[in-house]
Amino acid sequence: MAKVAEVIPQGVQYEFIAEDLSNKSHLLLKYNPVHKMIPVLLHNGKSICESLVIIEYIDETWKGAPILPKDPYERAKARFWAKFMDDKCLLPLCNSYWTQGEEQEKAKEEASEVLKILDSELKDKKFFGGDTIGLADIAANFIGHWFSITQEVIGVEVLTKEKYPKLCEWIDEFVNCNIIMENLHPKDELVASFQARLQAATAPK
Amino acid sequence: MAKVAEVIPQGVQYEFIAEDLSNKSHLLLKYNPVHKMIPVLLHNGKSICESLVIIEYIDETWKGAPILPKDPYERAKARFWAKFMDDKCLLPLCNSYWTQGEEQEKAKEEASEVLKILDSELKDKKFFGGDTIGLADIAANFIGHWFSITQEVIGVEVLTKEKYPKLCEWIDEFVNCNIIMENLHPKDELVASFQARLQAATAPK
Repeated sequence: MAKVAEVIPQGVQYEFIAEDLSNKSHLLLKYNPVHKMIPVLLHNGKSICESLVIIEYIDETWKGAPILPKDPYERAKARFWAKFMDDKCLLPLCNSYWTQGEEQEKAKEEASEVLKILDSELKDKKFFGGDTIGLADIAANFIGHWFSITQEVIGVEVLTKEKYPKLCEWIDEFVNCNIIMENLHPKDELVASFQARLQAATAPK
Repeated sequence: MAKVAEVIPQGVQYEFIAEDLSNKSHLLLKYNPVHKMIPVLLHNGKSICESLVIIEYIDETWKGAPILPKDPYERAKARFWAKFMDDKCLLPLCNSYWTQGEEQEKAKEEASEVLKILDSELKDKKFFGGDTIGLADIAANFIGHWFSITQEVIGVEVLTKEKYPKLCEWIDEFVNCNIIMENLHPKDELVASFQARLQAATAPK
């Protein structure tokens, strides 16, 4: 699930380099010395770090299929929601599934607040980006792909159709969209990874 | 220090609307319903929220004095460092000054780590943006302006020339740059505000 990628400007083709975060490579430490984290994009020997910064770089470098809209106000909205996914949604959702007891209950309440906001933002839109997938949809990949699988594996229900109908419709649209399906991490690998994590978390110590 | 601004596209002129965060206005709740926080930029009846999103909007809407460079890689670097200021520097610096005891010591250690990184990033550059002020410099305004004054008022030394010579040179360059000086919040008002906050924090309860 980790990547340090070498992008070759033909299409856009790229080489995916997996990274073992429990034993970080020299490549990762060299190219992301500040955060020492993935993802990192390598292009022409230069490194670009931070997910949203990488997406904007791709958008500005290869102009075949724009990720951000042209209009400055629409761009601002896309950036606002992408930042909201990163800053406000990731941690409470993660903790809703992967913690227990009081911490989990608190995380579920926080997750509920932000999921309500996302559900309401979608209103009659197919994607956060409108009719097509944009920056905020890509930033929300962890909701559409990761957490809907996490939920299946560990049996904690946070994302439900009853509570968040628009968001669940968005998940269906997102994961079944060709461009996304072709680039998603295989579901069986994620299931195996989450099952291993669950076993490690619940194994007697 | 709060603002909800109405921008008039002449120059760029704007109206500054102060906001009392202890009694939030209908205007703020209407235009930033998600975070209910400042800053908010109003333009043509539309609202743009989140500091860095606002700066990019200004850059894309009024093209007179570019804030971001043209080259995609340089733009990525500017965005990376601006995000670093927001995500990694603001909270530890704030807590270095405004907490006490163990919490303060921990915050000072964290602040020291990020300030070292900033000092090293500046190397032989005048600004984070190179020869001119850019996105990351504006994002670091709280270091150049706010925290150097906080330090004076409350007498806790975190930013010192001995430890961070390049960063302190940057502070001098930044606060004495015409375009910044003309737009800084007046020092005496900040001093008064910080003194009041200090008195409230140290008053017997």
